[in-house]
Amino acid sequence: MRIGILGTGTVAQTLGAKLVQLGHEVKLGSRTATNEKAAAWAKGQGARASHGTFADAAKFGEVLFNCTAGTASLDALKAAGAASLEGKILIDVANPLDFSQGMPPTLTVCNTDSLGEQIQRAFPGAKVVKTLNTVNCEVMVNPGLVPGAHDLFVSGNDADAKQAVTGYLRDWFGWHSVIDLGDITTARGTEMMLAAWIRVLMALGTARFNWRVVK
Amino acid sequence: MRIGILGTGTVAQTLGAKLVQLGHEVKLGSRTATNEKAAAWAKGQGARASHGTFADAAKFGEVLFNCTAGTASLDALKAAGAASLEGKILIDVANPLDFSQGMPPTLTVCNTDSLGEQIQRAFPGAKVVKTLNTVNCEVMVNPGLVPGAHDLFVSGNDADAKQAVTGYLRDWFGWHSVIDLGDITTARGTEMMLAAWIRVLMALGTARFNWRVVK
Repeated sequence: MRIGILGTGTVAQTLGAKLVQLGHEVKLGSRTATNEKAAAWAKGQGARASHGTFADAAKFGEVLFNCTAGTASLDALKAAGAASLEGKILIDVANPLDFSQGMPPTLTVCNTDSLGEQIQRAFPGAKVVKTLNTVNCEVMVNPGLVPGAHDLFVSGNDADAKQAVTGYLRDWFGWHSVIDLGDITTARGTEMMLAAWIRVLMALGTARFNWRVVK
Repeated sequence: MRIGILGTGTVAQTLGAKLVQLGHEVKLGSRTATNEKAAAWAKGQGARASHGTFADAAKFGEVLFNCTAGTASLDALKAAGAASLEGKILIDVANPLDFSQGMPPTLTVCNTDSLGEQIQRAFPGAKVVKTLNTVNCEVMVNPGLVPGAHDLFVSGNDADAKQAVTGYLRDWFGWHSVIDLGDITTARGTEMMLAAWIRVLMALGTARFNWRVVK
């Protein structure tokens, strides 16, 4: 499959590398076509990896990932262009974290709205599915790094898109327990979990953990 | 031990009943000394149970629980009076949930502040320990209702108070895994988890679940 990833940071590179390894064609997108980090990444990943602008990556991908910083996501998606998002699954991995005051970060949107909702409202033609935002990127692509059973969540308005993404999570990364929380407004729940996630990270001293809903 | 519980709702009654059953003396506090719900509860629990005003309960307790609605907690504690909180452990179980717009609720404070912090700031002489707010009250007093291992969290500025509360949670209710998140500002994390908790509740259709930090 052709996959477009918006973003060039650690999350984008980690997801991209895993997808290339699985045989997919992956294009990372950034503000400029000459992003050195993206170029170096693509070179290291071989023939199936490439990079370009946000618009290039969005046009390229049959499925898209938003791996930009949450504070930059709406601008990145505007640069990508609504036409290239139309009808596509957009897997939103970003969290609206503001690190400007140091650790722990605050959220730039929460409680009565969420980044996932903002994106869905701004791009009604995209099928936004919020997921993977509650784990570290190494765990995203390798849930076995955390032993035993633990969970992911999906939020989105399009049931078929959520089902497809749940399949991708299983087949691409090995996620076998994915809880469908409901429509995109439920992204408030998983984005706000970051406030706890960050503090558990600080208490445990490791990002290699995940939530399990025990019932 | 003499335990004062601010609040007369389901959480207060459930915690109170368990503590009476364990042999403690428990006084529920409410706005008025003649609260019928509290009177009926006390009558049903026998000689070790009593009720009164917020001030009565706060004065009575060697250890205090805040089980009022989060939106009413600061007023309840003001009515209790700072003098009766001075030097005491105040176990803050409340969440600042606003149900005025129906389900799911929003939080009246979050992200850059928390109810736990508001209470600690308003009553600097109290040793506020935020805990138990991430589970349903039946699970609070009987973690075995949720099978297997799962976690609670404590937040507070006083290390000795947190250690004492961790002991109470173990000895009174059977909690064996309690994660110390740090000072009272970390209550933002567990209070904001309610946004996810409520949505997991709505997705699963049961409140008999809890979080496990898998690592």
